[in-house]
Amino acid sequence: MIKNSPYVFNDYANMRGKWSSVFGNSNPIHVEIGMGKGKFIIESARKNPDINYIGIERFDSVLVRAIQKLDRENLANLRILKVDAECIDQLFVNEITELYLNFSDPWPKKKHEKRRLTSTYFLNKYENIFKDEQRIVMKTDNRHLFEFSIISMVNFGYHIEELILNLYDEDITLNIATEYEQKFSEQGYPIYKVVVSK
Amino acid sequence: MIKNSPYVFNDYANMRGKWSSVFGNSNPIHVEIGMGKGKFIIESARKNPDINYIGIERFDSVLVRAIQKLDRENLANLRILKVDAECIDQLFVNEITELYLNFSDPWPKKKHEKRRLTSTYFLNKYENIFKDEQRIVMKTDNRHLFEFSIISMVNFGYHIEELILNLYDEDITLNIATEYEQKFSEQGYPIYKVVVSK
Repeated sequence: MIKNSPYVFNDYANMRGKWSSVFGNSNPIHVEIGMGKGKFIIESARKNPDINYIGIERFDSVLVRAIQKLDRENLANLRILKVDAECIDQLFVNEITELYLNFSDPWPKKKHEKRRLTSTYFLNKYENIFKDEQRIVMKTDNRHLFEFSIISMVNFGYHIEELILNLYDEDITLNIATEYEQKFSEQGYPIYKVVVSK
Repeated sequence: MIKNSPYVFNDYANMRGKWSSVFGNSNPIHVEIGMGKGKFIIESARKNPDINYIGIERFDSVLVRAIQKLDRENLANLRILKVDAECIDQLFVNEITELYLNFSDPWPKKKHEKRRLTSTYFLNKYENIFKDEQRIVMKTDNRHLFEFSIISMVNFGYHIEELILNLYDEDITLNIATEYEQKFSEQGYPIYKVVVSK
């Protein structure tokens, strides 16, 4: 089922630097690592037809749910890659405008620190994927992951454009929630957001 | 009463660059802007005799309370200056090791942004007061002031050493609370802390 979805792009191995040709236009490309069940990236693609979206996800279990949702959609500006985030520097070069990290796995143990998507290890992987300015948009409800990420990204050289320590206390008219975010914000947990660039 | 306290140093106008001579030693000097009723700086001075502390406060109403507390103390490593934070670059040069900003006035209105102690305006004032490395330790319960301060300090070039978004959920054995902090943390409000340096 996953392999046959028109949204799932299986031939990604040779597309590095050529993603605009997949979309047939030169619109900005936004990437979400860990798109999960897809609510965020599908709604984003629907609302912003002039932006191309690529969602990355390694787990079949959640990808299946995303593909079910897409049955009712007709989105020329969305592609899904079933691949591990580890490969991101093999997938893209000088072509991404924005990278979304939504409610990533916190990997709380110190010995797994490198696996967090905002570790120096991953930040190095992101170095060449961006077109011009590098911009990462992160949301999480995990306080320790957020604290770690701010320190990691700032000390890597990123500036902070936006920082919100309780997203749902602000005007969230333009916010697009993930499935997880919807559930946890409704339970009253604070949602953290940061936008960094360099 | 304030002027007669042995802790209040009135002749500060000509001490720029010479504060070690006031203490009679070359121990590191830590400064708190807005020491208020003094709980934080008095306890700090008591616990760390090898660090010299200078508290700055402009309001008589709270300074009186600090001086009352000091009646029972004998702290050779503490001085108090009744002066406005505006003057900090006139008071010190190349001689401070650490600057504390505890529960500073949030000045929530945009038009008062410059008055926040972490505005670019104030960060520029701090540029020459530090001896070697510049280090600012900030605590607050005000979310918007904290968000503003992180962005302001990071984009000014500071690195983040420590970031805690809920201080009282962590091990606070070594934490010294201010009067205000004690009250608000007991009521369950999150206390934010950041340590930056450059």
